[in-house]
Amino acid sequence: MGEEGRKLEAEVADIAGKGGIRFVGPNSMGHADTRSQLSTFGQFGEMPKGQVAVLAQSGSTCLKIVRSLGESGIPLSKYISTGNEADLTMEDYLEYLADDEDTKIIAAYIEGLRDGRRFFNLAKKITPHKPIVAVKVGGTEESARAVMSHTGVLAGADAVYTAAFKQSGVIRVEDDDELCDVVYALLNSPLPRGNKVGILSIGGGPGALAAEACEKEGLAIGKLEPSTITRLDGLLSSRWPRRNPVDMAGPSAAEISVVASLLRAMMEDKNLDFIFLLAPIIMDKALLAGRLGLNPEAVKAYRDKEEKNITLIREKVEEYQKPVILMWQLRGYSDPETTALFRKGGFVVCANARRAASVLKYLVWYRQYLAVATGK
Amino acid sequence: MGEEGRKLEAEVADIAGKGGIRFVGPNSMGHADTRSQLSTFGQFGEMPKGQVAVLAQSGSTCLKIVRSLGESGIPLSKYISTGNEADLTMEDYLEYLADDEDTKIIAAYIEGLRDGRRFFNLAKKITPHKPIVAVKVGGTEESARAVMSHTGVLAGADAVYTAAFKQSGVIRVEDDDELCDVVYALLNSPLPRGNKVGILSIGGGPGALAAEACEKEGLAIGKLEPSTITRLDGLLSSRWPRRNPVDMAGPSAAEISVVASLLRAMMEDKNLDFIFLLAPIIMDKALLAGRLGLNPEAVKAYRDKEEKNITLIREKVEEYQKPVILMWQLRGYSDPETTALFRKGGFVVCANARRAASVLKYLVWYRQYLAVATGK
Repeated sequence: MGEEGRKLEAEVADIAGKGGIRFVGPNSMGHADTRSQLSTFGQFGEMPKGQVAVLAQSGSTCLKIVRSLGESGIPLSKYISTGNEADLTMEDYLEYLADDEDTKIIAAYIEGLRDGRRFFNLAKKITPHKPIVAVKVGGTEESARAVMSHTGVLAGADAVYTAAFKQSGVIRVEDDDELCDVVYALLNSPLPRGNKVGILSIGGGPGALAAEACEKEGLAIGKLEPSTITRLDGLLSSRWPRRNPVDMAGPSAAEISVVASLLRAMMEDKNLDFIFLLAPIIMDKALLAGRLGLNPEAVKAYRDKEEKNITLIREKVEEYQKPVILMWQLRGYSDPETTALFRKGGFVVCANARRAASVLKYLVWYRQYLAVATGK
Repeated sequence: MGEEGRKLEAEVADIAGKGGIRFVGPNSMGHADTRSQLSTFGQFGEMPKGQVAVLAQSGSTCLKIVRSLGESGIPLSKYISTGNEADLTMEDYLEYLADDEDTKIIAAYIEGLRDGRRFFNLAKKITPHKPIVAVKVGGTEESARAVMSHTGVLAGADAVYTAAFKQSGVIRVEDDDELCDVVYALLNSPLPRGNKVGILSIGGGPGALAAEACEKEGLAIGKLEPSTITRLDGLLSSRWPRRNPVDMAGPSAAEISVVASLLRAMMEDKNLDFIFLLAPIIMDKALLAGRLGLNPEAVKAYRDKEEKNITLIREKVEEYQKPVILMWQLRGYSDPETTALFRKGGFVVCANARRAASVLKYLVWYRQYLAVATGK
């Protein structure tokens, strides 16, 4: 933003201020409200109504987040590309969303805050009952300069932001992709009670990679209860390692009902707070009809069987408040049918083990924050 | 692997040894050679011949890597699920691949080495002319235990492995996804001469996120030459920030030929060693025919224009030996047509800025290693 731009912007703000007009931007891609179906974002057709609000100090990043959430089947309540915030600021939007009944989760892309104190005071009141997930850039020298020339805000000392986010219960993620994954998880899954992961894997390699990713994120690999080992003995070949990660090591992984039984047994283990599943639990249609060569009736029968197992798993998710995070068969991830099944099952779906471990870490942190903040 | 398993394995190895028979596994998913079209992996149909060999101490991870590379249009020379290595070991396969003319790049998933010294001595001879990319698990307590129960190898001290990989020029990546991305980059792109990145972005937010990701990986944000700024002034609206990251900030991003001109101008800047591009340079067919509503002739005309621009960009990639890493329009990533165009253009394509920055870091490191190892 050059000198001339700054002058023009001040002039617009001045005129609006005199007329008592509040406005979004400038340098904004617009905003949208799915309740009133009002959009200045160039939206075509009806907007699905949802529970997630997106605030972003960058139009292209706003668009990217909105699209990514949409592809994961997550509709929105509001989204705002806040632009240069010559009048309405990030803090104003946050204050509004605090009381917005349509909004259950707030996602924000932040370059810098004009009134950090106000933002974090608001956040502290909001986060005990409405999660805020935020990505904040400007933590390195050049990204801070990039931010300055983009929306004219000062990025500020990263350590200060980190502390303020932590104290006010804001889940600070590292990029827009993590932001979408965490929003998905918060919307579809309970929060884990602790940090002990159970890993159920189609093979030894993926299990070892997942264990390493989890430990590097500060999660613990839970020790299986003896009774769980006995139950798994009855479901698996004698080759299984009789420990966590549970390597299915054999044909069991091909039979969805066996995978579901193994999963349920692990969810009932008191030493595990959530399960990291590395096996296909839902097949995508293209695979069923294509490589497996099933006819339409057989595909339908397969889906019925899957849905039955998913219902049983979901019951356990609710009963024990233990998330199931899934990674493996991802080709069908953005197919609306399988996406709907994943959400119905309460599975958190991630394309990568390190990303999944990272999402779990955030859930664990937020649960711990809530325990302190709300005494529950 | 239990006591009985160990006994049976020793017996098999003993019988084979007496008969002078070498063998893969046991506990292996098989192996394949695309030159002779021999596969024990359950391969259907003809296998495309390629230049990448995959060695993996896990069948499911081997399969995942082979599939991921296949989806990125990368055919293989050989792939081997090495299993428990009761006879032939990782070291034997590496020795074989050192002289295999079909293999130009070696990718390995390693849990532990039986003869580390032999492996790293071989690697030191291979890496100056044939890159080795490896993921090594077992770096944390539980992943080391998982590895032990999986293939019976001792994972060993992680710091020792890290040092040995570094000294022998092996590019050590963090997981199988990075492995595939780095293999793709080595196969399709030159190595950068230095660590200075130029960022060309469709918007300020993505540019700031990319700058931060690059700096966190130890890459530097290059300072644009004055002559480059002048050239860009002629291509962009006056709103552009006149610095790196280059925010196209306007309609220019919609016109492929403008993006291509901007890209070429940045590639000719002496202060930049590679370009991180956050803008669509190739549209996928579904988008052209769908949202943009182009008829088949218009799609063809659009492709012709793209191909012309891609050829010009590729020429610059070759001329200046500067990689272009692309992130943005990823829906068409696995579509064979756009994948072929990406490869033709010498673009490295990544789904995430942090992943992209990570891949660039590995390329920079390997180039520096080669400079010392070969004196070039």
